Amino acid sequence: MSPTSAPVKIAVLGCGTVGTQVVRLLLEQASDLAARVGAPVELSGIYVRDTTTPRDAAVPVDALTSDAQALVDSSDVVVEVMGGIEPARTLILRALERGSAVVTANKALLAQGGAELYEAADAAGADLYYEAAVAGAIPIVRPVRESLAGDRVTRILGVVNGTTNYVLDEMTTKGLDYDAVVAEAQRLGYAEADPTADVGGHDAAAKAAILASLAFHQRVGIDDVYCEGITAVTADDIAAATETGRVIKLLAVAEQTDAGVSVRVHPTLVPRDHPLAGVRGAFNAVFVEAEAAGELMFYGQGAGGVPTASAVLGDIVSVARHKAGGGKGPRESNYARLEVLPMSAAMTRYAVRMSVPDRPGVLAAVATIFASHGVGIESVRQMPGKGHAGLILSTHRARESALSATVEDLRSTDAVNEVWSVLRIEGEL
Amino acid sequence: MSPTSAPVKIAVLGCGTVGTQVVRLLLEQASDLAARVGAPVELSGIYVRDTTTPRDAAVPVDALTSDAQALVDSSDVVVEVMGGIEPARTLILRALERGSAVVTANKALLAQGGAELYEAADAAGADLYYEAAVAGAIPIVRPVRESLAGDRVTRILGVVNGTTNYVLDEMTTKGLDYDAVVAEAQRLGYAEADPTADVGGHDAAAKAAILASLAFHQRVGIDDVYCEGITAVTADDIAAATETGRVIKLLAVAEQTDAGVSVRVHPTLVPRDHPLAGVRGAFNAVFVEAEAAGELMFYGQGAGGVPTASAVLGDIVSVARHKAGGGKGPRESNYARLEVLPMSAAMTRYAVRMSVPDRPGVLAAVATIFASHGVGIESVRQMPGKGHAGLILSTHRARESALSATVEDLRSTDAVNEVWSVLRIEGEL
Repeated sequence: MSPTSAPVKIAVLGCGTVGTQVVRLLLEQASDLAARVGAPVELSGIYVRDTTTPRDAAVPVDALTSDAQALVDSSDVVVEVMGGIEPARTLILRALERGSAVVTANKALLAQGGAELYEAADAAGADLYYEAAVAGAIPIVRPVRESLAGDRVTRILGVVNGTTNYVLDEMTTKGLDYDAVVAEAQRLGYAEADPTADVGGHDAAAKAAILASLAFHQRVGIDDVYCEGITAVTADDIAAATETGRVIKLLAVAEQTDAGVSVRVHPTLVPRDHPLAGVRGAFNAVFVEAEAAGELMFYGQGAGGVPTASAVLGDIVSVARHKAGGGKGPRESNYARLEVLPMSAAMTRYAVRMSVPDRPGVLAAVATIFASHGVGIESVRQMPGKGHAGLILSTHRARESALSATVEDLRSTDAVNEVWSVLRIEGEL
Repeated sequence: MSPTSAPVKIAVLGCGTVGTQVVRLLLEQASDLAARVGAPVELSGIYVRDTTTPRDAAVPVDALTSDAQALVDSSDVVVEVMGGIEPARTLILRALERGSAVVTANKALLAQGGAELYEAADAAGADLYYEAAVAGAIPIVRPVRESLAGDRVTRILGVVNGTTNYVLDEMTTKGLDYDAVVAEAQRLGYAEADPTADVGGHDAAAKAAILASLAFHQRVGIDDVYCEGITAVTADDIAAATETGRVIKLLAVAEQTDAGVSVRVHPTLVPRDHPLAGVRGAFNAVFVEAEAAGELMFYGQGAGGVPTASAVLGDIVSVARHKAGGGKGPRESNYARLEVLPMSAAMTRYAVRMSVPDRPGVLAAVATIFASHGVGIESVRQMPGKGHAGLILSTHRARESALSATVEDLRSTDAVNEVWSVLRIEGEL
């Protein structure tokens, strides 16, 4: 480090769970960070709405300010860990327009208004980094954005929401119903009082949009992501999955095929020995398939103040290094012009679980309906009941629209009492 | 991309398995790469010793040259995929001194002469990238070097050699002896005719040195790495491991404690449900513990021309982007001045397997020897034999020198017939 290097001034916007840990690490590790950056890093201030609220002992009270604009305007690097759309969006744009580097953990903002931010960063030649926005501490944004920049990513499968993973885990290991597990998770603080963003799949969908944008070099917004949460998953679904050697995971799926790009979030049947099946509780994992690299997996803690702060600090070092020594990180790479496919055009495999009358000829009638829509049957499993039979049909890869039409017909034939559930399948048994 | 961007000229040194795939991808994906780099990338030539040797169809014959120096001197980026120390070293130094960026997959050279290369790169302000030198396609260098740059890595455990992992796997699943499996692996092409570099642990040791240098911000060379291969692992060792719920893996271990840094490669007992235990065949995995991030794992293909080329291409995009748009990757970060501990000072847990006479008082005598060296016993397992008993003692964390002294005493007491093996233990059952 040159002894004359001017300090890089870091503003932190927001002082919640993540912000507090970012501030703590910035101060505690100042000399290590300076060595890695090549210049001292200096906390220029912490924006909070109310400077009088009591804070963690790690937060220097005299660094707090409620004047966000003045703080942004006097900093080289702006770290946004407030969350929410406004004022985060306005402050980030202000920072980028000044040419300041921005580090953000704000997945909702990136998935919804990312285009505007990326354009502002490119126009100003400023860095916009966001490792912490996807899968907490797991380095996944940088590997996809940089390590795989010479490869062609074909598919990403991710367990990227800890709350839903915990709920499905508990349902599986304890045989409990969804409602009971969510209530317990809320009591333990693993689920929010209003868990909609998690259990509805919206949080995972935002991460899927960010990963798909990076992997496929084009803009994928949250509105492009088909989103189905775990609220309809029943204890019976889980029991049937277990019986067929699978587990149910809420997966974020992003695929590139010749037809286009498909990005979706839904409960998914995964073989018990698939690497993603073993991801427990609040851990996250992202499985990446690329043409040359083959299969890769990234695993670690997906949330929490301290792990997320690790990802934020890594980004701070990168952008501060550019401020001190020149250079800039990768620009947004959105040159690809692939079609983003609607869910009806997605291709995957399905398990259709239904109740059928216990009489001869039923299977033939059901099979005929699948065949009439061109949906191939991979396996059939019967479970006897009283006066009816449970039936699970697993299909070959089929188009979602063909499967939907099949299910509609199944619902109106007297060869089927009731269609209990339709779950998508990934991975080979 | 600006329409006037000058092309970035890429020289490829070496045209073996990896070099051929690098050339193929550079040419096939030229337009994608140009979009990601912000300028066209142009293959300026391929250095080979003999330009008349028949090559893969993907290699343009007119790009071959046997004049390495002229090629290096006319290129912006030099990709070294020859392997070996010379002429790789001289050519890399020549490129760096000119200010060209270097991408290398040469773990042996980096682990042995890395300091000289890093210094040359820093002196010239040139990029030196080497993702492909550790764990093939798995992005591990960039995450440790950049994503975790704001964190403190405390430990790395890696399965980083596919050949030994395959051999131990086969011994475990088929109950075969070491010699039989290695002979079969050679026949199938999974092991070299002279497998010493792999089975002796030297290849893993080179990777351990590189990872430790990055993780701990100081220079660790291959001579600092304690290295014990798998040649002494017996079918009995494997059977005993299985019986105690563990598997044997050749692990690269790099640890930072208050006492200093310990870097080593040795066969290691790992619980069967540890994430590293499930790494099969030629796959690699690296487990990283950091203070803030917690536990992370990176998994993928550790070798092979195409996967390794993916890692090389990712590096080419990064350094070519700097050439086209300015900036530079991270410098070598070697400010830490930690002591590199000798193996005798390493702290770990051990399983000592021995044959003892089948008579009362033996366990007391053995336990007394452990106690006399301050080595705590965690568990004892007896396996009856004819006229003797098999005994496995697992220890608490102990200093290697204390364990060595214990084993020396065990070998000279008449309470022990024979010490069969000493294996180190990682992870909790």
